[in-house]
Amino acid sequence: MEVQSVFLTQLVESLQMLPGVGKKSAQRLAYYIMKMPEQEAKKLSQSIENVKTKVKECVVCSNFTENEKCPICMNEKRDKNIICVVQEAKDIGVVERVGEYNGYYHVLKGVISPMEGVGPEELNISSLLSRIKEDEIKEVIVATNPNVEGEATAMYLSKIIKPLGVKVTRIAHGLPVGGDIEYADEVTLSRAMHGRMEI
Amino acid sequence: MEVQSVFLTQLVESLQMLPGVGKKSAQRLAYYIMKMPEQEAKKLSQSIENVKTKVKECVVCSNFTENEKCPICMNEKRDKNIICVVQEAKDIGVVERVGEYNGYYHVLKGVISPMEGVGPEELNISSLLSRIKEDEIKEVIVATNPNVEGEATAMYLSKIIKPLGVKVTRIAHGLPVGGDIEYADEVTLSRAMHGRMEI
Repeated sequence: MEVQSVFLTQLVESLQMLPGVGKKSAQRLAYYIMKMPEQEAKKLSQSIENVKTKVKECVVCSNFTENEKCPICMNEKRDKNIICVVQEAKDIGVVERVGEYNGYYHVLKGVISPMEGVGPEELNISSLLSRIKEDEIKEVIVATNPNVEGEATAMYLSKIIKPLGVKVTRIAHGLPVGGDIEYADEVTLSRAMHGRMEI
Repeated sequence: MEVQSVFLTQLVESLQMLPGVGKKSAQRLAYYIMKMPEQEAKKLSQSIENVKTKVKECVVCSNFTENEKCPICMNEKRDKNIICVVQEAKDIGVVERVGEYNGYYHVLKGVISPMEGVGPEELNISSLLSRIKEDEIKEVIVATNPNVEGEATAMYLSKIIKPLGVKVTRIAHGLPVGGDIEYADEVTLSRAMHGRMEI
């Protein structure tokens, strides 16, 4: 039997669907939302509706946007010769925060993963090839994750893009800044050794 | 400059207001919500609106409810002689889950805390006294938190309710079940010793 408002129970259930939110956290969040100022709660619920109803994919790069093209593809001042390929739209924000890359992006919407039945045809690759052929792209930086699937996808992209006369590069592997050699795994350290540069 | 949809940014900002949700988690949650099935996201935003617009306080005990009285106060079958006083409405759910208490509740909406400027007059005490006087209450169980403020509040309630000829009890202090004496703090162990019972 319900001991409290069914609306609270519903909110707890909905919050529990979110990643990393268990029953206890969902309850804590629900009570917090209950006590939030009306306006803030309204903003939160409205934001959720907005992302679901108004946000779509950029027709060029598949970044998230509420317009036809995303703010990056709309920006004429960026370097038209480079495309950085990322796995997911959220990775664009990560690269942008570094503040050093000034080219455009392309979202693959996944990586090749035979284990999960994802082949190249499931990915957003054909539009990448069209962009490479139509625009004056000179370099494609593959910024997929540094794991098996990410590497395999990078290799695959390299194999099909290089024949188009475009340079394909991969973000470097090595020790994370602030890390400790003692705790580095062998594969990373091996990559860091191979990728060594003169100083 | 925005690199993605402003709606996503707004959602991240709203999620960051929640307790225990930092920037990274807010982003992760926002992207998860983006990819949620439309219906689930709708349910989440609707639930948030519902708790803010439809949930109010029970006129009797201040539990959360969408009706005039909460489901517990509406239940005629419970023990009319006992009231369990809790700090917050969410504590009702905690006591109910134990499944052994069958009386009614009263939500104080806080505890006496001179440090935070909360005195007895800020709490939901006068309606508790009315209930005690009007109904046939024989016992008031004080289930405030086992900390300084909770204890002080329990003492205060005892002082003003006892003169009305009503028994005031406090939930027991002691070692948590499954705990280890080795890790018990002195105060808890001292309380556990004082509260010992013949077996």
